[in-house]
Amino acid sequence: MAPESLSLYQHRVEQQLQLLMSAQPETASRLHQAMRYSLTNGGKRIRPFLVYACGSMLKVPLETLDRAALAIECLHSYSLIHDDLPAMDDDDLRRGKPTCHKAFDEATAILAGDALQALAFSVLADNDDQSLSATLRLKRIQLLASAAGIAGMCAGQAIDLAQTNQQTDLATLEHMHRLKTGALIECAVQLAYYSSELNCTDTLHALTEFASSLGLAFQVQDDILDIESDTAVLGKPQGSDCKANKLTYPALLGLEGAKTKANQLYQDALAALARLPYNTDELKAFAHYIIARKF
Amino acid sequence: MAPESLSLYQHRVEQQLQLLMSAQPETASRLHQAMRYSLTNGGKRIRPFLVYACGSMLKVPLETLDRAALAIECLHSYSLIHDDLPAMDDDDLRRGKPTCHKAFDEATAILAGDALQALAFSVLADNDDQSLSATLRLKRIQLLASAAGIAGMCAGQAIDLAQTNQQTDLATLEHMHRLKTGALIECAVQLAYYSSELNCTDTLHALTEFASSLGLAFQVQDDILDIESDTAVLGKPQGSDCKANKLTYPALLGLEGAKTKANQLYQDALAALARLPYNTDELKAFAHYIIARKF
Repeated sequence: MAPESLSLYQHRVEQQLQLLMSAQPETASRLHQAMRYSLTNGGKRIRPFLVYACGSMLKVPLETLDRAALAIECLHSYSLIHDDLPAMDDDDLRRGKPTCHKAFDEATAILAGDALQALAFSVLADNDDQSLSATLRLKRIQLLASAAGIAGMCAGQAIDLAQTNQQTDLATLEHMHRLKTGALIECAVQLAYYSSELNCTDTLHALTEFASSLGLAFQVQDDILDIESDTAVLGKPQGSDCKANKLTYPALLGLEGAKTKANQLYQDALAALARLPYNTDELKAFAHYIIARKF
Repeated sequence: MAPESLSLYQHRVEQQLQLLMSAQPETASRLHQAMRYSLTNGGKRIRPFLVYACGSMLKVPLETLDRAALAIECLHSYSLIHDDLPAMDDDDLRRGKPTCHKAFDEATAILAGDALQALAFSVLADNDDQSLSATLRLKRIQLLASAAGIAGMCAGQAIDLAQTNQQTDLATLEHMHRLKTGALIECAVQLAYYSSELNCTDTLHALTEFASSLGLAFQVQDDILDIESDTAVLGKPQGSDCKANKLTYPALLGLEGAKTKANQLYQDALAALARLPYNTDELKAFAHYIIARKF
């Protein structure tokens, strides 16, 4: 069962994304459409949820979190567009709908991803936003840029591509996931922390460990679902990871071993939350939702 | 004749780029190599020159300009990698060397561009940089993000792709160039301005108009050179724009008309400089160098 706040935060970020895109120039209308298409294709909004839920737990007003939620979703959306490209994972479907390069064309998809990355930083840097000190706003940009680039997500995708059709081990697989998706999920909770005026490294570390375990649990669960679910529920062809000769947790640990691993990561996430002197019910419920999901 | 400072600033940014890449993690070594390959492939460093030359004219220390010069070159480099991709302009050569996707592969080239964009923002946001107030550092990020995205460079490239094989007019061609390359060249001088503590909109406007005319003059000259030069000098096959059915100034205005246009833009650039209460000799020499270049 999803935490009650999930749909609330999903709704909030959907509205914010609509407003954001309405404020962008439409000179290049096809590019604008492709960006909007990809931003509003029914994502789970996990990263914005983490920004809002962690921030609220730390007593940060939602208004101060909006730009962080928007920026991280723009960045995530760009990464999906580029990952789906023929030269990358070559996926035709994303959440049951044509991927950006299928709905538009490859050049437009590359540009839509590029422009969404720029938009993420534009949103965080906007001078109209006076809800946070300039120093903390710079810190948020620094975190996002680091999580997005060669120290994070891009490196993870490069390692993922390099290991296709290669024999690899659990450590490499985990390292890849920690960079490819983990970096941005950790960034989400760190953006929330740096939207507060807190100066408590224990809180920052516990939140980061929570996000790190949760992010990996999400990936293991993804691999499990890829075997167990069918296309209608999952929005992508069942077993597509196997077909692409991608290494998965079930392939390395067996299906039962992967389930044990996912549960262990879930417990790690809960243990990190237990160290926080805050009401963590929302985050606990979210961790359970992630591990129990069937889609 | 190039201004004397050109090679000085070129050398400075080359060194800074080497240091920057040496500081990046090499976990994804192929990605790291592709980024370094594209950053150090012998570009003219026009944008870093403008940052350094305008900033020096405004009495900004070079150290305060380094990050702006680096960031704009990272961003420019990413844009070239993506523009060269098969789905975009499909170019095999760039400055006489294989383009990134030819030297590496398409997926790595897409990722190298993505990671270079993130790196540009990372460089500008870095908290170790205390040479400038947080407010001005945010302003620089905002300028770069705006010039890079759907209000600037990405929109220009989208319009360029849309007009291939289409009948179009001078206004559309100019609009495209002003976004595709003009936005980043204007950004270079604006980054210099916002690296100073000046509060003088006349100076900002004159610098922006200089850059705007210079950027367009550069494009017109590019179109002329595409007809007049040969591959050995130019680093790309002669007449490649014609072959791709791209609209050019000579195609619309004739070769002599294009030369008149380029000269008029050069005069506009000089007129903008004449409004500045500074020693503009370096910028004047650079404008002449751009318009008289044969490569």
